[in-house]
Amino acid sequence: PDTAALAQARARNGQLTKPPGALGRLEELAIWYAGWRADPRPSIAAPQSIVFAGNHGVVAQGISAFPSEVTVQMVANFRVGGAAINQLAGAAGAQMQIIELDLDRPTADFTQGPAMTEAETVAALRAGWQAVDPQADLLVVGEMGIGNTTAAAALSLALYGGDAGDWTGRGTGLDDAGLANKTEVVARAVALHAPTITDGLDALARLGGREIAAMAGAMAAARQLRIPVILDGFICCAAGACLASTQPGALDHAVAGHCGAEPGHAGLLARLGKEPLLTLGLRLGEGTGAALAIPLLKGAVACLSGMATFAEAGVSGG
Amino acid sequence: PDTAALAQARARNGQLTKPPGALGRLEELAIWYAGWRADPRPSIAAPQSIVFAGNHGVVAQGISAFPSEVTVQMVANFRVGGAAINQLAGAAGAQMQIIELDLDRPTADFTQGPAMTEAETVAALRAGWQAVDPQADLLVVGEMGIGNTTAAAALSLALYGGDAGDWTGRGTGLDDAGLANKTEVVARAVALHAPTITDGLDALARLGGREIAAMAGAMAAARQLRIPVILDGFICCAAGACLASTQPGALDHAVAGHCGAEPGHAGLLARLGKEPLLTLGLRLGEGTGAALAIPLLKGAVACLSGMATFAEAGVSGG
Repeated sequence: PDTAALAQARARNGQLTKPPGALGRLEELAIWYAGWRADPRPSIAAPQSIVFAGNHGVVAQGISAFPSEVTVQMVANFRVGGAAINQLAGAAGAQMQIIELDLDRPTADFTQGPAMTEAETVAALRAGWQAVDPQADLLVVGEMGIGNTTAAAALSLALYGGDAGDWTGRGTGLDDAGLANKTEVVARAVALHAPTITDGLDALARLGGREIAAMAGAMAAARQLRIPVILDGFICCAAGACLASTQPGALDHAVAGHCGAEPGHAGLLARLGKEPLLTLGLRLGEGTGAALAIPLLKGAVACLSGMATFAEAGVSGG
Repeated sequence: PDTAALAQARARNGQLTKPPGALGRLEELAIWYAGWRADPRPSIAAPQSIVFAGNHGVVAQGISAFPSEVTVQMVANFRVGGAAINQLAGAAGAQMQIIELDLDRPTADFTQGPAMTEAETVAALRAGWQAVDPQADLLVVGEMGIGNTTAAAALSLALYGGDAGDWTGRGTGLDDAGLANKTEVVARAVALHAPTITDGLDALARLGGREIAAMAGAMAAARQLRIPVILDGFICCAAGACLASTQPGALDHAVAGHCGAEPGHAGLLARLGKEPLLTLGLRLGEGTGAALAIPLLKGAVACLSGMATFAEAGVSGG
């Protein structure tokens, strides 16, 4: 972040026509945004929402309530504007892109070996990096990929430890037997790979997936482009965790849009040190929870940049 | 609410391209909105935000960090677009009205007698009622009035009991001595009036203020007009509590936009049975916390009305 812009934004915030601190978290959010944009009086005019889609070999282990075909079917739905993220990105004034990542070529089943080769991982990271619009002033990344809560749970367990049950949830709607099987699959996969995992990006290749790597690539590109990011759900945060585990502070340009109902999400947010803006029980992915938080950040920035100061308004100080 | 629209909205929600329940609270919010609008596939196109301003005789007891002149100064700031609510209503696409209620004639000091006569109370209720645009499809009411957290604390104590300290906070920024004095003032006022208070509207007259009565009038009008309401902070909720204490269910057409930092707010929301959409530490009033929640409701309704069904999208069900 730009320290001069941060200081100027903080000074301006202290002069606005409100009691000190009365806008609560909105004040720190707006100042944080000003710092990353290097603009003490910024605006948010061009948010970008990207949905990355990938397929997962681990579905062979029976870990999802929906079949893999749903990934490509939902991509078609995104393209015609029929999904939840279309509505929420539209309502928030965000442009939207859909990036399909080799849907007809799923990752390898990571209970048997690495999900991706190094070349596949780099290609997915690059696809994410290149998808970010350099003119965007806010980024939301979401995903679609049947089986990807299993990948996110395996990544979380590999990066942060604990029990497989701490990180494994019902995803799109598993029953108790399905959840027990999924938990066992996660434990088995991590037992296979953990001894040789060297860092977050290595974990990403072994236990992640193309859409998860692409999200990580997009978030890293946003950092370089000074584009603040709103984190979405469990899977997005698992992608972010791969970056943060590799380089501390790699998500300093990101805030948590929400805490969802998938049980591992709260644990990831805690490990990442991110307090969610919303807690509304979402568990859809696609970027929906992050898109829902765009207007909160817009509102925060509008207050910082648009409010009058006490002096301008002729209002008596407290 | 319209039971046919509720049932149709609920049925439609169950067919949308997402796992059941995956949009969490957004689903119930959208269905609730559809019921009150009697439209199973509604949209939110015309939100209205109204700020009511009033002055309070109880400021003579030294209960505020800011002088009474700030009320009229802030009204001028609202009119030129310089306040926080201007930015947040604008960002949410809401039209905005400012209604001043006899600012040069404060209410009586309610530690000495009733704040308002019956005629004054009715006039303020009517001003609120008449301010609601019948064409609005969502209503946010806010307030400005130096001293009005003291009135809200007194109303809360009178309506729900407990200790004065449970309901009394620092308002715009009292120090410890100021808070102790304010708590004592609230206790003394309620001790004076409680024995003769007959219902919520009677409490409103004795311990409220013109802007608080106007908010209650506007919320009652919205009910009649089938316009859903988003509740704002402690003072707005105290106004709502006067209605709900008089007639159970009087706030069924309202959701809680946020839980603020003023300590009595959480207690009021609990008594009203309202779970807040946001908890971001705001304590400004003006309608800011409610306006910040408008996009959440817009997003919820956009999903219900805009998403494709599984059949329309050709997506395989779970």
